[in-house]
Amino acid sequence: MCVRRCVITVGDLGEFGAVTRISGRLPQGETVLLGPGDDAAMVSAPDGRVVVSTDLLVEGRHFRRDWSSGYDVGRKAAAQNLADVAAMGAVPTAIVVGLGIPADLPVGWLDALTDGFRDECAVVGASVAGGDIARSDLVVLGVTALGDLGGRAPVTRSGARPGQVVAVAGRLGHAAAGLALLEAGREGDRAREAGRAPSGNRLPGEAGRSDAPPGDGLPGEEDLEGDSGVERALREAVAAHRRPCPPYACGPEAARLGASAMLDVSDGLLQDLGHVAAASGVRVELDSAAFAVGAPVRAAAAALGIDPLDWVLTGGDDHALAAVFPAEVRLGPSWQIVGRVVAGRGVAVDGRETGDGGWDHFR
Amino acid sequence: MCVRRCVITVGDLGEFGAVTRISGRLPQGETVLLGPGDDAAMVSAPDGRVVVSTDLLVEGRHFRRDWSSGYDVGRKAAAQNLADVAAMGAVPTAIVVGLGIPADLPVGWLDALTDGFRDECAVVGASVAGGDIARSDLVVLGVTALGDLGGRAPVTRSGARPGQVVAVAGRLGHAAAGLALLEAGREGDRAREAGRAPSGNRLPGEAGRSDAPPGDGLPGEEDLEGDSGVERALREAVAAHRRPCPPYACGPEAARLGASAMLDVSDGLLQDLGHVAAASGVRVELDSAAFAVGAPVRAAAAALGIDPLDWVLTGGDDHALAAVFPAEVRLGPSWQIVGRVVAGRGVAVDGRETGDGGWDHFR
Repeated sequence: MCVRRCVITVGDLGEFGAVTRISGRLPQGETVLLGPGDDAAMVSAPDGRVVVSTDLLVEGRHFRRDWSSGYDVGRKAAAQNLADVAAMGAVPTAIVVGLGIPADLPVGWLDALTDGFRDECAVVGASVAGGDIARSDLVVLGVTALGDLGGRAPVTRSGARPGQVVAVAGRLGHAAAGLALLEAGREGDRAREAGRAPSGNRLPGEAGRSDAPPGDGLPGEEDLEGDSGVERALREAVAAHRRPCPPYACGPEAARLGASAMLDVSDGLLQDLGHVAAASGVRVELDSAAFAVGAPVRAAAAALGIDPLDWVLTGGDDHALAAVFPAEVRLGPSWQIVGRVVAGRGVAVDGRETGDGGWDHFR
Repeated sequence: MCVRRCVITVGDLGEFGAVTRISGRLPQGETVLLGPGDDAAMVSAPDGRVVVSTDLLVEGRHFRRDWSSGYDVGRKAAAQNLADVAAMGAVPTAIVVGLGIPADLPVGWLDALTDGFRDECAVVGASVAGGDIARSDLVVLGVTALGDLGGRAPVTRSGARPGQVVAVAGRLGHAAAGLALLEAGREGDRAREAGRAPSGNRLPGEAGRSDAPPGDGLPGEEDLEGDSGVERALREAVAAHRRPCPPYACGPEAARLGASAMLDVSDGLLQDLGHVAAASGVRVELDSAAFAVGAPVRAAAAALGIDPLDWVLTGGDDHALAAVFPAEVRLGPSWQIVGRVVAGRGVAVDGRETGDGGWDHFR
């Protein structure tokens, strides 16, 4: 009987029902020797060393259920951990996930989240090997990724040396541009509610999203037909915020090509390269003209009246890779050389000093 | 200057300050090849396979800051994951921790939490290899433990066969007794506040704890002098709730002694053995007279008018190990044989059927 409420929730399933349901959606690849259902999982570690990275994501701070589908949240949460593993030069093998979820969470959202984890892992040949489920008022995700170095040395943050070059692979500024567009849309909503702004900065295809119930599928793709190139670029920026696309294979590739330092860009390129500079005891000098600024970033910057380079240099959440190579390195097309390592300290752009350009979660 | 507020908080430190502070308190053992400070840690996995378990703990559901110190929360959070690894027959090597913390969390609490993680890991020769920190309104801990099997097969839940014996190692019912005492104390507080109960079930040494600010040290040990044996036993039960004492070494020992199924008792012995029975397709029969009921459990049961066997059979959070061995096994003094495996299904005590006797977080 379904009279007042037609959405099946996690509370309806119960803890063990939810665990069974999640496990049933998770095929196991060959790196997982023992999957969900026991006290612990078992994952192959042929190298004899295992790379491990963990992140905690909290609803309202790292994602919003009204801005991202469960599927996107799963892909994003997996991606940021898998990118950390790749940034060591390792190939991801598995993730485990601690899920904190409210009892009234629709089961469809949990299914979509699970599928997101599964599909992002599949991109790199990894699997969800296990997890834990707990009740929580907000959705909280504790994601841990494992990886294998295949005999290579790990590429840390401390190996940059003067004379080397700095290169990046993957998107920069896309997620920040998308977030800014979503925030501008929200401000537009508020203004409209107050009767002050009849139209303006709401984006095509984004209208009403923050009022809609959390969706499980991919948002608004049917609306793409007939869009102008600008609208398409704006939508790509929003999609990049919802779901990063880290250049995973570039991590082990960089290690093979002799990268001596590497990290994934999670807090913004300037801030993250600042960690390399500090850990290595060197100075990083970037050349702003060397960055290929993506069309979504340029379109969003034009729409909001912002310098696109701000997002490229300080935007987080794209999980690009930044690495330092010997000057004579021959890089493939995934990499752009954007600067050099010199003696000194800090990070400079076009010869000008920069401070911490990223995001500090507590200040 | 300190005028209105003299407690240094996590917000005062900032994210990177907090990370630096935590890392500085964490010595690295020889199993950790690369510790905190990079995109990922690197842990030895000499077996070529790595055992991995993760848990998510949420303030108010899994712990209370007014009932447990930061140090106890850290030890307990580490213990429950390390016990999962031990329950596979593996030796824990490292944990990584995702910390969700409020900006107004006192730094002293964070220090104590960190020390708790460190010290519980040290019990088994493991280390805290890395982590992540995020802002959250409640304290949330995502803990992942890794372990090495040393060439042994993992001991799962599905290997129990008729004719084998069931044995337990470690405490049973202590944590449940302690929790019941704390809850009874809380009810006593409420009654007093309402002017209905002038005294009664508040425990010696527990008085006022729920009103006190979160402490960093061990509670009330100075009050032990002069206590009667009963009071001491009650305090031991409360301490067991705050900090489990899993029999870690018994996990690999059981594997060497031929255990064919094993798990750690986290939700209650009946419920957890129900998982073994279901996964193995067998029936578990327990003999209630075979359990050695600890003095803290007996004292608390007498104080609250409860059958101590209830806590022994259904109490969670002690992280004892339950394992199934060939009937001819010769076990050391850490193990008690408490039952046998027969054909059939479910779990029985003294020949009587039991239902799910544990705790379902969502119902």
